[in-house]
Amino acid sequence: MSAFSRFTALAQTLPSTVPFVGPEAIERNRGLAVKARIGANESGFGPAPSVLEAMRAAAETTWMYSDPENFELREALALAHGISRDNIAIGGGIDGLLGEIARLIIEPGTPVVTSLGGYPTFNYHVNGFGGRLVTVPYIGDKEDLSGLLDAVRRENAPLVYFANPDNPMGSWWDADSVVSFARALPETTLLILDEAYGETAPAGTIPAISALIGQPNVLRMRTFSKAYGLAGARVGYAIGTLGNAEAFDKIRNHFGMARVSVQAALAALKDQAYLADVIARIGASRERISGIARSNGLLPLASATNFVTVDCGRDGIRAKAIVDGLMEHGVFIRMPGIAPLNRCIRISVGPENDMALLEAALPEVLRAVGSRQ
Amino acid sequence: MSAFSRFTALAQTLPSTVPFVGPEAIERNRGLAVKARIGANESGFGPAPSVLEAMRAAAETTWMYSDPENFELREALALAHGISRDNIAIGGGIDGLLGEIARLIIEPGTPVVTSLGGYPTFNYHVNGFGGRLVTVPYIGDKEDLSGLLDAVRRENAPLVYFANPDNPMGSWWDADSVVSFARALPETTLLILDEAYGETAPAGTIPAISALIGQPNVLRMRTFSKAYGLAGARVGYAIGTLGNAEAFDKIRNHFGMARVSVQAALAALKDQAYLADVIARIGASRERISGIARSNGLLPLASATNFVTVDCGRDGIRAKAIVDGLMEHGVFIRMPGIAPLNRCIRISVGPENDMALLEAALPEVLRAVGSRQ
Repeated sequence: MSAFSRFTALAQTLPSTVPFVGPEAIERNRGLAVKARIGANESGFGPAPSVLEAMRAAAETTWMYSDPENFELREALALAHGISRDNIAIGGGIDGLLGEIARLIIEPGTPVVTSLGGYPTFNYHVNGFGGRLVTVPYIGDKEDLSGLLDAVRRENAPLVYFANPDNPMGSWWDADSVVSFARALPETTLLILDEAYGETAPAGTIPAISALIGQPNVLRMRTFSKAYGLAGARVGYAIGTLGNAEAFDKIRNHFGMARVSVQAALAALKDQAYLADVIARIGASRERISGIARSNGLLPLASATNFVTVDCGRDGIRAKAIVDGLMEHGVFIRMPGIAPLNRCIRISVGPENDMALLEAALPEVLRAVGSRQ
Repeated sequence: MSAFSRFTALAQTLPSTVPFVGPEAIERNRGLAVKARIGANESGFGPAPSVLEAMRAAAETTWMYSDPENFELREALALAHGISRDNIAIGGGIDGLLGEIARLIIEPGTPVVTSLGGYPTFNYHVNGFGGRLVTVPYIGDKEDLSGLLDAVRRENAPLVYFANPDNPMGSWWDADSVVSFARALPETTLLILDEAYGETAPAGTIPAISALIGQPNVLRMRTFSKAYGLAGARVGYAIGTLGNAEAFDKIRNHFGMARVSVQAALAALKDQAYLADVIARIGASRERISGIARSNGLLPLASATNFVTVDCGRDGIRAKAIVDGLMEHGVFIRMPGIAPLNRCIRISVGPENDMALLEAALPEVLRAVGSRQ
């Protein structure tokens, strides 16, 4: 091999991999064109027109590094959440922040608790620092809060990951259950409460910021990638105690934020009217996906997110055949990776054009898949 | 403290810090406005108009994650350099890539060789992984290649950092010396050859890509932040063997690149006419800065970069007084942090408006500083 000979022992054991294969790679590898991009839980509705305008205006300032303190964005977020900017750390999407938290807590062998079939990028970062994943199965397609708590106690784990609403299942717990879970955790266990899909959840799902802001063992994760429609901007943030927000300053790439992206986030935060409108459209699109699923004899699961997970009724082989079959029609979707979740496919919301393509392709794919099995 | 109690032992020893204080923070803390931003080696000439156009057009695609394989950009860079895209790893500026290399190689106590007064962000990443910095003084304001080699051998260091041209001094070695240095290193020592300022160096400074591409212990770092004028986009890349380029895929944040930024880099690469033009303007601006320095009785050092380091003739106290004094006039510059380099100030190139502000402010500042000492 042509690699350097003295990478760390840990680095040498790690595979060169990617947590998710991008639709662009699928297009290249299979010689297919994506016509409906509804697989990565992006928002085909896009960001607000006011955000696009702010981005275009910000292009001219790209010759400057972005403020390494992210002062203005933290200030705006603090105002929006009724907290101090010192409670906020900015990062390159939640993915980037998850990597930083992993680095702050995980050493080789450190036990880390998550759900079996939960967010793969979190697992990627845990593995990347040599952590030992301890997984708890979903129950009824929901993350198992008491199972997670048991695992944390049993393993004396310093870190537990919980997404509410959940990806890839779209399920959710009510705010009271989440707060109870957070309060029941040992002080020596940090909860990553991933609320990437918080904006699209029903009322009563997301705990008040004040409910957990004083707990030094909780970090709440938010993003502009989902409801705000800015996946390609890479702006996420963590909310926590002052000491925890400051901890990121020990290791983060201070000059790592793209200037246009930060301006996009600032503009997005200002345009709450657009957010309300797009949340309504996301809700309608969930209904549309669910209707398409039902008309095809499939079972859509209830969703608090910008996607709908659809039970295809058998196993991962059948679900994968559907995913691959839809891609042949230019419809890019994804599916959970682990049984029994992988009996499902996961379809992101999108504009009517995408839905029409899905509606046209799905019966054909199911016919072909059915006859093959 | 309100921080979580189980951060790693290493994390608990690290300070919350930033390698460079941003001009925005100086403005906030001192209540001053930056009128001439010529301190961070950005390019006030900006990116090409064609790049701005591409960025504005790309804004609408920001709802999508950027291709995690960065296929198109690696392909374009490969073509430009006459290598394979498998020789290229993309990252969030050289800063981001330096952090990734540190993570791949450094464990607590690992010796890492660099120059005393060299790039602080590299040191930040070394410290961030618990590495032990072994520093070699500059000789005549140039990095000391034979001293670096001696230190590598003495310490059996797996990693050495060398910037050519150099920041903060602007000095440079010829390509043959660089290649000889790289070839003389033990196979067990990886050279980070930071060529952030490569585009603005005189002919004969930058080794041919082919000269080092086969060496598994060399990674060459390039960026769109300097001559290309895209500091705020955060796009850099590493050139190395296939095995080394792949190593980044073990740990990087695959979905971490901002989509508009990648499009900006692609457009910048296409507009080589603009690059040639801006390099000429950078050269003229270096002359302008040098002239201003000389008229004020200061000694500008020769520079292969987009800044000029100016010897102010005494020590760090005097240089700092000049930096602070210029800021009072709205002229933001920086200075090297370590003696004897810190007898100098460092002024980035920029449009004539910035130069005029510098020219007006410097005599006043020198008068005030002189009378104070």
